[in-house]
Amino acid sequence: MTEWKKRDLLDLQHLEKEEIELILETAKSFRQVSARDVKKVPALRGKTVALLFYEPSTRTRVSFELAAKRLSADVINIASNSSSSSKGESILDTALNLEAMNVDLIVVRHPSSGVPDVLSRHLKAAVINAGDGCREHPTQALLDIFTVKEKLGKIAGLNVTIVGDILHSRVARSNIWGFKKLGANVTVCGPATLMPRCVKDLGVEVSYDLESSMKKSDCLIVLRLQKERQQDSFLPSLREYAKLFGVSQSKLDKASQDLLIMHPGPTNRGVEIGADVADGCQSVILEQVTNGVAIRMAVLYLLLGTKGVN
Amino acid sequence: MTEWKKRDLLDLQHLEKEEIELILETAKSFRQVSARDVKKVPALRGKTVALLFYEPSTRTRVSFELAAKRLSADVINIASNSSSSSKGESILDTALNLEAMNVDLIVVRHPSSGVPDVLSRHLKAAVINAGDGCREHPTQALLDIFTVKEKLGKIAGLNVTIVGDILHSRVARSNIWGFKKLGANVTVCGPATLMPRCVKDLGVEVSYDLESSMKKSDCLIVLRLQKERQQDSFLPSLREYAKLFGVSQSKLDKASQDLLIMHPGPTNRGVEIGADVADGCQSVILEQVTNGVAIRMAVLYLLLGTKGVN
Amino acid sequence: MTEWKKRDLLDLQHLEKEEIELILETAKSFRQVSARDVKKVPALRGKTVALLFYEPSTRTRVSFELAAKRLSADVINIASNSSSSSKGESILDTALNLEAMNVDLIVVRHPSSGVPDVLSRHLKAAVINAGDGCREHPTQALLDIFTVKEKLGKIAGLNVTIVGDILHSRVARSNIWGFKKLGANVTVCGPATLMPRCVKDLGVEVSYDLESSMKKSDCLIVLRLQKERQQDSFLPSLREYAKLFGVSQSKLDKASQDLLIMHPGPTNRGVEIGADVADGCQSVILEQVTNGVAIRMAVLYLLLGTKGVN
Repeated sequence: MTEWKKRDLLDLQHLEKEEIELILETAKSFRQVSARDVKKVPALRGKTVALLFYEPSTRTRVSFELAAKRLSADVINIASNSSSSSKGESILDTALNLEAMNVDLIVVRHPSSGVPDVLSRHLKAAVINAGDGCREHPTQALLDIFTVKEKLGKIAGLNVTIVGDILHSRVARSNIWGFKKLGANVTVCGPATLMPRCVKDLGVEVSYDLESSMKKSDCLIVLRLQKERQQDSFLPSLREYAKLFGVSQSKLDKASQDLLIMHPGPTNRGVEIGADVADGCQSVILEQVTNGVAIRMAVLYLLLGTKGVN
Repeated sequence: MTEWKKRDLLDLQHLEKEEIELILETAKSFRQVSARDVKKVPALRGKTVALLFYEPSTRTRVSFELAAKRLSADVINIASNSSSSSKGESILDTALNLEAMNVDLIVVRHPSSGVPDVLSRHLKAAVINAGDGCREHPTQALLDIFTVKEKLGKIAGLNVTIVGDILHSRVARSNIWGFKKLGANVTVCGPATLMPRCVKDLGVEVSYDLESSMKKSDCLIVLRLQKERQQDSFLPSLREYAKLFGVSQSKLDKASQDLLIMHPGPTNRGVEIGADVADGCQSVILEQVTNGVAIRMAVLYLLLGTKGVN
Repeated sequence: MTEWKKRDLLDLQHLEKEEIELILETAKSFRQVSARDVKKVPALRGKTVALLFYEPSTRTRVSFELAAKRLSADVINIASNSSSSSKGESILDTALNLEAMNVDLIVVRHPSSGVPDVLSRHLKAAVINAGDGCREHPTQALLDIFTVKEKLGKIAGLNVTIVGDILHSRVARSNIWGFKKLGANVTVCGPATLMPRCVKDLGVEVSYDLESSMKKSDCLIVLRLQKERQQDSFLPSLREYAKLFGVSQSKLDKASQDLLIMHPGPTNRGVEIGADVADGCQSVILEQVTNGVAIRMAVLYLLLGTKGVN
């Protein structure tokens, strides 16, 4: 198996297939740790991880925090309001200060695309992108891929459909890169107003008909609908959206019984997904959450554990 | 001695006398831990405790956080604004996510009564109620009982008076259940507008005359007055309240010199309690705080330490 | 070498030269710890440190938090809004509660001068002043002195200039006390409106001409300009301030090439310091940050590590 060489995890776009596979393989062993009675290994003892979140987040922040703590790292939480002034300079300044305090790794979430790359260019500390603007959210895609692989045994050749607001979704973008690299066929489905213009250049198929896409899919990734988009007039009405692109039980009944239903959370039940579907037996939403901790432990471990970055 | 069998601590209403006594007994040994030079035992190493607070709180949150850390658990803090939308579903959703991340125990405070029970019904993780609406705040009552027992050597047969806003007080309700179960006689005292209608059904005496109640009491639990209640027109004026139901030194002088003065904190000095009384030699307010950590260590330990819940 | 005897670190005004030197010496060995692969020592295992910040702060809070965690202490974060009501009593009440929970040491930042002294008088727990009003910020001065000593080999006889809003700066005040005690000559420089009236009583020289002060200095401490001061009409315009008292490259070119440029951060680039100067080769701003963790580890260790305070 390949060895991990990168200092950062900024996106899946620039990751090799083998690097993705190494993360998945590493996550497998870490998933055991969280299932144990004593959920703690000393792998990152004496390392310092800073969580630098410029957007509100509970799940992703907690997932990274648990991952770091179960690896015995020291964790520093810094939550900053993205609406505060002088951002661009300020976040780099904050990050340089953290590095000067010998922080080994910075997990960063920011409303502007590219911020993790900027940090990476200026820092010796490792950087993990926990979501940047509309660009990428690589650990979310990695946990999605991990979950599908656990459930269906492989990725290559699978038909994966991503449904929702493709235009603004960093989860969609990371999943497209990741699943494609591992050989899946990816279809994106959603209203035309929420479809990026050159999305086909990413090597995906485009569908505006959810039911027929579901029939051909092994796995359906349902994106969270940002209700604010309606005000931006990307959307007619939530009811209209739910009718056309919401994953209802009746649509699900027409698809394969083996179709996996996934969602990055938190769900808008009754909008992009029916409550019965989200809680149903084809849903693996909570398993995604469980696997998220394992993926983040794997990434933290690969970036910090072996070579003593910083 | 009995063995602990429950998975959760939701209230004192449904706890057996023996279970309460087991918690008190366990807290005794943990109080030694916090008095040591090295305030740390490995009992919950590798366990994960989430503090999920939907009401602002410093004291209770810090007390639980210290209790968990001194038991070597990993602690996750999640503070959520109760004014944010979509609560009911959202807190269960958050809790299910925490459980999916293999969180072993959730300490929850919420403005709505019954929320901890809802979580308990849906979760395999252990749940501790850190205050739900006007219903119960069991660890507060346990630390009150523990403090009285330490000071007076017993609970059975004691005369305990609780004074203040009985109607809205979860502290009152938990203390009524707890002290009654251990054989104390409980009197509740306060303005008629702040007295629950069927309070006598709880097996307590009702008094509207603080001075005479104090004369007959071994222990007086002074409740914090929520000043907001005045706007709700439950109260005439703070001065009027203080005159009738505030624990002043002059009232105290007429009672027994052994009368214990207790308060869950933070105090409104000059309203429900005089500054001289709060800081006086009959006050055990700070001892309550010290015992609070021990009680919470005991509860965390009983729920998690022995059987490896989750 | 002297032994540490004080229970608190409230200011540099009342510290002996030998005590300052002991902290500097202790910090030297702790700086090694943060440079190691495993940045952790068990010195304060089982001790509890509370960070009680009544002013927003990321850097200082994180620096103390890292220092405490790398010494293996348990850390509790309490951030309180200084605008909340009933402060005076409330912070002492909060601190007494923390002490009752067997917190060993409280690091406090507060907008009112003297608050750490008040806490110290009422508490047996140790207190560190992390900045009180316009009075002192002793650990900032200690890290400044440490940085200068590392860079220039000594303090006695050096010419140190502090430039900016001397009137409102606790950093200035602590640095004046500290550098003077160790034998440096201190000059304060800034607009007349921002100069304390009896500043000469502190044994410093006063200058209103930055360029000439820089020419005579070994080290220049640039204070952060609080832009709010302009509204208070202490300042004409930011441009005017920058022109006269901003440290530009052109002013720097006229001074010694060995002049150290320091700043407590965060910088207002283009106001009190040019971006090229802040990032230039004479700037030791990030080294100050690194040394800050070492200084805070040293202080925490001296207050808690040897005698088991509390």
